[in-house]
Amino acid sequence: MRAIVPYGAVDPKTRLNSVLDTDERAAFALVMLRSVLTTLRDAGHEPTVLSTAPLAEDVRAPSATVAVDDRPLTTAVNEQLAAADTPRLIMMADLPLATPAAVTGLTADTADIAIAPGLGGGTNALVVREPAFRVDYHGASYLDHRAAAADCGGTVSVVDSRQLATDIDEPSDLAEVLLHGDGPARAWLEDAGIELAVGDGRVGVRRP
Amino acid sequence: MRAIVPYGAVDPKTRLNSVLDTDERAAFALVMLRSVLTTLRDAGHEPTVLSTAPLAEDVRAPSATVAVDDRPLTTAVNEQLAAADTPRLIMMADLPLATPAAVTGLTADTADIAIAPGLGGGTNALVVREPAFRVDYHGASYLDHRAAAADCGGTVSVVDSRQLATDIDEPSDLAEVLLHGDGPARAWLEDAGIELAVGDGRVGVRRP
Repeated sequence: MRAIVPYGAVDPKTRLNSVLDTDERAAFALVMLRSVLTTLRDAGHEPTVLSTAPLAEDVRAPSATVAVDDRPLTTAVNEQLAAADTPRLIMMADLPLATPAAVTGLTADTADIAIAPGLGGGTNALVVREPAFRVDYHGASYLDHRAAAADCGGTVSVVDSRQLATDIDEPSDLAEVLLHGDGPARAWLEDAGIELAVGDGRVGVRRP
Repeated sequence: MRAIVPYGAVDPKTRLNSVLDTDERAAFALVMLRSVLTTLRDAGHEPTVLSTAPLAEDVRAPSATVAVDDRPLTTAVNEQLAAADTPRLIMMADLPLATPAAVTGLTADTADIAIAPGLGGGTNALVVREPAFRVDYHGASYLDHRAAAADCGGTVSVVDSRQLATDIDEPSDLAEVLLHGDGPARAWLEDAGIELAVGDGRVGVRRP
């Protein structure tokens, strides 16, 4: 399936700024992007990175098509949806825990719109089989996408995947990578000296 | 499968105290417990509530056996594991998003220890097929349970379920119930006037 991976290339991951500086956030965002591209290819899909700015050649490995569109996320994704046939998979670039099996669980779903929600109402991955469907990533996009699917008469399915639900936006999310990751994103965090902080409640991270 | 549902009956859910008062937290915890008992029974299991204090008859509906043990969680669960044959399912009482299908995904796994992790390193549900295995819920119990399984030579499987990963401990977790729930826990929150607060990042809750 043709897959779109939106990527905000300019000052990414600002909500991690209490733990990572600007250069580190840019580097870590690229590590996560490459992880998602590898996962998609291992699941048998052909990813196109939809980036807000050109990417250097070396960050495009493993090989992926890059389309540059500096408009807002929703506009850029809808342009892609309008330009090509369905089905299309749209998957966020900050899902380093996603496995090929989790992606296959989503793409095997035959609903017109299959949603993998993120924490807090986001939409981390989406399969669109209904040509009239358009995305809206502002606000509680999970609810908006359900409503939009209903508006165009489409069936909706919501997949139950922790791996696809764990987008990495906030410092506490880094703990999930250290707890459950086994790829380059975890290795990058460990090299950067980020470690788990175990207390009474949920595990967090610290940088001693 | 015989299922144990640990339940802290005294001043439950203290981390929700910025949104719910003491009586409300007690009431909401019971709503969630009943939801989990229904889910387990719908999945074909026989739940026993392992409560730190006796429960009134009406909060035991749908009918469930109640065992009272006021010792710490880990001690009480291990006493249960030592007292009966495996396999046993241990499932937390604060998982109102759990569905029978998600529970079946866990119990169908044939590993000696099958884990459904919670956010932040917890262990939300666990199937134990290895008689020598004992739990330890302190700290990052997910990692401890993996290590304990290895120590007794057991195979480990980690299931990929957002529904089972979403334990309700903190105010932001209430947003997940309002976003994804369709049962009594969501209805209770709506009746209490808790609503989604949509901003730029993840959706939270507010109580106008």
